[in-house]
Amino acid sequence: MKLKTSSLLLTSALLGASMVPAHAGEDAMLNLLKVLRDKGTISAADYDALANAAKSDVESAKELESKVETATSNATAVSLNGGHLKIKTADKAFSAQIGGRIMADYAIMDEDDLGGKGSASEFRRARLFIKGTAFTDWGYKAQFDFGGNKTTIKDMYLQYTGWKPAKFTLGNDKMPFGLEELTSSRYITFLERSAGTGAFSISRKNGLSVGTNGDNWTLKGAIHMDGIDNENSGQDEDYGYGGRFTYAPIAEKTRAIHLGLAYHHQELETSGGKAIQVKLRPEVHTAGKIFKSFEDTFQDYDTFGLEAAAVFGPFSAQTEYVMRDYNAVSGSTDQDLNAWYAYASYFLTGESRSYKADKGAFGRVKPRGVVGKGGMGAWEVALRYSDIDLEDNSLGNEGDIFTVGLNWYATPNIRFMANYSKADVDGESDNFDAVNFRGQIDF
Amino acid sequence: MKLKTSSLLLTSALLGASMVPAHAGEDAMLNLLKVLRDKGTISAADYDALANAAKSDVESAKELESKVETATSNATAVSLNGGHLKIKTADKAFSAQIGGRIMADYAIMDEDDLGGKGSASEFRRARLFIKGTAFTDWGYKAQFDFGGNKTTIKDMYLQYTGWKPAKFTLGNDKMPFGLEELTSSRYITFLERSAGTGAFSISRKNGLSVGTNGDNWTLKGAIHMDGIDNENSGQDEDYGYGGRFTYAPIAEKTRAIHLGLAYHHQELETSGGKAIQVKLRPEVHTAGKIFKSFEDTFQDYDTFGLEAAAVFGPFSAQTEYVMRDYNAVSGSTDQDLNAWYAYASYFLTGESRSYKADKGAFGRVKPRGVVGKGGMGAWEVALRYSDIDLEDNSLGNEGDIFTVGLNWYATPNIRFMANYSKADVDGESDNFDAVNFRGQIDF
Amino acid sequence: MKLKTSSLLLTSALLGASMVPAHAGEDAMLNLLKVLRDKGTISAADYDALANAAKSDVESAKELESKVETATSNATAVSLNGGHLKIKTADKAFSAQIGGRIMADYAIMDEDDLGGKGSASEFRRARLFIKGTAFTDWGYKAQFDFGGNKTTIKDMYLQYTGWKPAKFTLGNDKMPFGLEELTSSRYITFLERSAGTGAFSISRKNGLSVGTNGDNWTLKGAIHMDGIDNENSGQDEDYGYGGRFTYAPIAEKTRAIHLGLAYHHQELETSGGKAIQVKLRPEVHTAGKIFKSFEDTFQDYDTFGLEAAAVFGPFSAQTEYVMRDYNAVSGSTDQDLNAWYAYASYFLTGESRSYKADKGAFGRVKPRGVVGKGGMGAWEVALRYSDIDLEDNSLGNEGDIFTVGLNWYATPNIRFMANYSKADVDGESDNFDAVNFRGQIDF
Repeated sequence: MKLKTSSLLLTSALLGASMVPAHAGEDAMLNLLKVLRDKGTISAADYDALANAAKSDVESAKELESKVETATSNATAVSLNGGHLKIKTADKAFSAQIGGRIMADYAIMDEDDLGGKGSASEFRRARLFIKGTAFTDWGYKAQFDFGGNKTTIKDMYLQYTGWKPAKFTLGNDKMPFGLEELTSSRYITFLERSAGTGAFSISRKNGLSVGTNGDNWTLKGAIHMDGIDNENSGQDEDYGYGGRFTYAPIAEKTRAIHLGLAYHHQELETSGGKAIQVKLRPEVHTAGKIFKSFEDTFQDYDTFGLEAAAVFGPFSAQTEYVMRDYNAVSGSTDQDLNAWYAYASYFLTGESRSYKADKGAFGRVKPRGVVGKGGMGAWEVALRYSDIDLEDNSLGNEGDIFTVGLNWYATPNIRFMANYSKADVDGESDNFDAVNFRGQIDF
Repeated sequence: MKLKTSSLLLTSALLGASMVPAHAGEDAMLNLLKVLRDKGTISAADYDALANAAKSDVESAKELESKVETATSNATAVSLNGGHLKIKTADKAFSAQIGGRIMADYAIMDEDDLGGKGSASEFRRARLFIKGTAFTDWGYKAQFDFGGNKTTIKDMYLQYTGWKPAKFTLGNDKMPFGLEELTSSRYITFLERSAGTGAFSISRKNGLSVGTNGDNWTLKGAIHMDGIDNENSGQDEDYGYGGRFTYAPIAEKTRAIHLGLAYHHQELETSGGKAIQVKLRPEVHTAGKIFKSFEDTFQDYDTFGLEAAAVFGPFSAQTEYVMRDYNAVSGSTDQDLNAWYAYASYFLTGESRSYKADKGAFGRVKPRGVVGKGGMGAWEVALRYSDIDLEDNSLGNEGDIFTVGLNWYATPNIRFMANYSKADVDGESDNFDAVNFRGQIDF
Repeated sequence: MKLKTSSLLLTSALLGASMVPAHAGEDAMLNLLKVLRDKGTISAADYDALANAAKSDVESAKELESKVETATSNATAVSLNGGHLKIKTADKAFSAQIGGRIMADYAIMDEDDLGGKGSASEFRRARLFIKGTAFTDWGYKAQFDFGGNKTTIKDMYLQYTGWKPAKFTLGNDKMPFGLEELTSSRYITFLERSAGTGAFSISRKNGLSVGTNGDNWTLKGAIHMDGIDNENSGQDEDYGYGGRFTYAPIAEKTRAIHLGLAYHHQELETSGGKAIQVKLRPEVHTAGKIFKSFEDTFQDYDTFGLEAAAVFGPFSAQTEYVMRDYNAVSGSTDQDLNAWYAYASYFLTGESRSYKADKGAFGRVKPRGVVGKGGMGAWEVALRYSDIDLEDNSLGNEGDIFTVGLNWYATPNIRFMANYSKADVDGESDNFDAVNFRGQIDF
């Protein structure tokens, strides 16, 4: 009921109802009663009784209206859109999200192969998280992985977002390095990130980062220490710093080109240097580590990364090159290692990989038809070549991995993946191959 | 306000309001004003002013109605029925539940007894879980136990429920074997499941199951691997398969008869066979393992289970027999072990154990009077005899356990339990006895 | 719409609308129509049509009203006040809260110092919890710490609150001992509790407690065992008991005086006694343990605590003295150790520390201005002196620690802390100093 004072009635009626302030307190009924009384159609006694009734109607209506107002406008909204539990206050100053992810993997390998460990199953990831916004300008995330019956802190940070040009993050978060690394494991195209670039990526570190971005570019810098527990060695913790810049000359919904570069420096604080040997699995997480550098003692290392990706409708391609220079302590030898990969993917059902130019990473694929709503999901085929060079000074090995992938996105948050991988190590007569399946949901 | 077009008014008034489409846009007031204008009771100017006011009332009412509609029909519903936090969308396509369970146990044993370890306390279970529905046809559950300051993945799976005849589950879930095993630890009658049948039960495995059921029967089959982490041995993981059928000739709310049988085959992939010794506690989780088979090397084993239970009002009885045949590698000897138990329970306060014939397991007991709502809870007394035969080829031992239990269900989700257990091992002069208390809540 | 029966109309109109029962079923419009029909202003046919329309309006209004009633009064309320996710049923019989805390610490020490371990970072606390109310009279809490990638059960209990004079808690909970210990780590003034009194505090134990309180006093007693897992030694578990009384002669919002005393007895069940050496860090959690008692073998020990605190506007002071008497087994020597601390804090921005006289502990500081709502947060400076005496019989050592602290409470649930600590151990030429930073959020 829109309610007006009687003094406003005629004016407002002439000017049109849209100019009348709502809820001014009286009712069309009251005005009619007045007219009827003034014309003598109804008696003064009738008027009084009817007007009292009408007024009490108006009161009730106002009360109801205010109840609805309270219930709808002040309410903290709870939603389960896409299966994700989110809570948000009406003024958006506070929000919370509770969720997680399950990835159940089943691999078939030959136990006589190089790195083959026989059939194997595992929960590759079994995570819970809470994240949220507090007092408008602050954010946080606490995320744990319990895969393998172990507890691993993943994202664990506090954020300040109140100074618009940049966002500050304190705690454990992904360092700005690597397109595939910065794309959530929920969205990567193959079961595993490419072995070489994955190994040289910096992943999560505990520190402080500052990031800024435009619609089609991102820039982020970070410094970090190494600890997430208190069992330090009695020496200074290792620390590092780095940054990443991405730019998208095309950044449309189904057409995009991504370019990126990143640098990271890692200082090793162990006195006398730290012994390091890079060891990599052939892109199957339950397999043995068959790619190996020569173990030597280093005082620091630098990592350089180049990224490019393109999306043209259902087709996409992506490549990264990563180079790491290990700087030796005296008596040891420097090592320059590198790796690259390139892959292409195609959605048989017409979807596009979801590039987020303001984040410099890929996001969630939303199938056109959802299984459970009459659709058949999205189907994607993909092919990757990874080249891994852990050899320097004629020590360590090198090789490559081919992977063919088939992904079925049954819903936006549920997918099933199958990968066939074949890996060769130079100089080894034996090689590795495996089929690996995954059932995945995030919520 | 139900609103009609003026053209519909007379017809609808004659035919009865129930046939009138709601919200057609005009108001009883408007019609009255027209009648009064047409009769000359009010002037055209009065009519215009009053009609404008009435129309604006109608607009406001429609707006309010639509707000209420939005708030009530589209709302994601949050409930805490029985203390369980559930969120569900109005269309039921999405839901989420967050909860857990706490079981705090306090045992008094004699440290000089066989298997007695002195007084002991522990959190027998300390669990959190999230489960939910997504896009109507999909379900998931992620459940962790943190008892003993360890992380253990429990239920961890993805489900497809969109093909009505059957439900598919991928991940870690209870295998279809054993009535007591498949009854949640929240609902079992004694603090611990019967030692022998518990040990031979298959519990949770990581694999794929297919289950179907009618109102009074269930049928489920499963194949599984063994891993929930990636530390496989370099050999094929063990795998197994099995199934269970249950039938309830009577399946009423307070009267039920349950019959069940199950089979499971476990293949041991370790080359040369796997050394296995069955070792069991005397149904007190903090006690030592006093029942032991002879350790030998096997290549696979088969497990057979028979189940029966009956509920007649406050009285219920339950029994299971489990037989396991270990098949030896050459040079070792086969072993056929078995165990059975039988128990009876009686609710002094008149409740019935809650048999779920469409699940083939027991569910939650709801006390008639709830402590906190003026009631005194449900009180149950129970007696169990367990017979354990781990002897074959004159090796290993055998024995039995008597348990007397008293359970107080203060509310549907809170109970306190006390068990007195007495165990004998054949050929041992010493025996074991213990009193064990539990405080339990699930939420 | 407030709706009345026509028979009530005139009476109610005369007596005033407030006496009219709402929703009695008719409408002011209907009454007007009757008057107009009776006066002949409108025809009987007009009346019938208009009355039908009006009745259907009334029905719709009632339906709407009942929808609103259902939506607003029965609704389970979800709130995010202060960033804390709480769910509560309208009748308050059930509630749930899901949250946690993150504390990210970064310390700078000199690795050549006594106990200095070089720079170090860690998640000092990384916790999740669910707590709630069930069936009015019952409560529970399940809280886990995952800091250091380890799982640690913290609060884990079931509560009965239905007998007003006292509250019963079964499970793992803080024992009633120590003002700083019983003040949540979210609210303590320095990064670490005072070394000496913290070490002698009893912290959390698994047992049963009974607590009662008035507006300005608290009394609590507890008995406890030691286990939260099932790996008992084969001997009786240790047990203990104790109690605490607090009284606040002044207990106003910004002026308070707190007095407290506590006692605890710990029985060590290991036969032949238990070897104990107290070892303490210099109030920096990543540092080495530099304060040490002489290791000897004891059969039990008693701990006594005295507490005092005062709040006068922005100024507050706090002190505790703790004495522990270790009672030796024969062949060993008794030890009487003790520690005390005193500190003062001052809010530059005018806030007061939040003393809770009915809990005997300090609570959350709420800054006058919140960062994110135009404010600058609360700023607090603090100074602490801790004296630690682990020497008895001329064995063990003693020393002291000075700490200067600066706290910035950006919001009620986010704060940043910096501590400079300097520790001396008597008889050591070397000493310890460190700067330690923390970023903290609780949600």
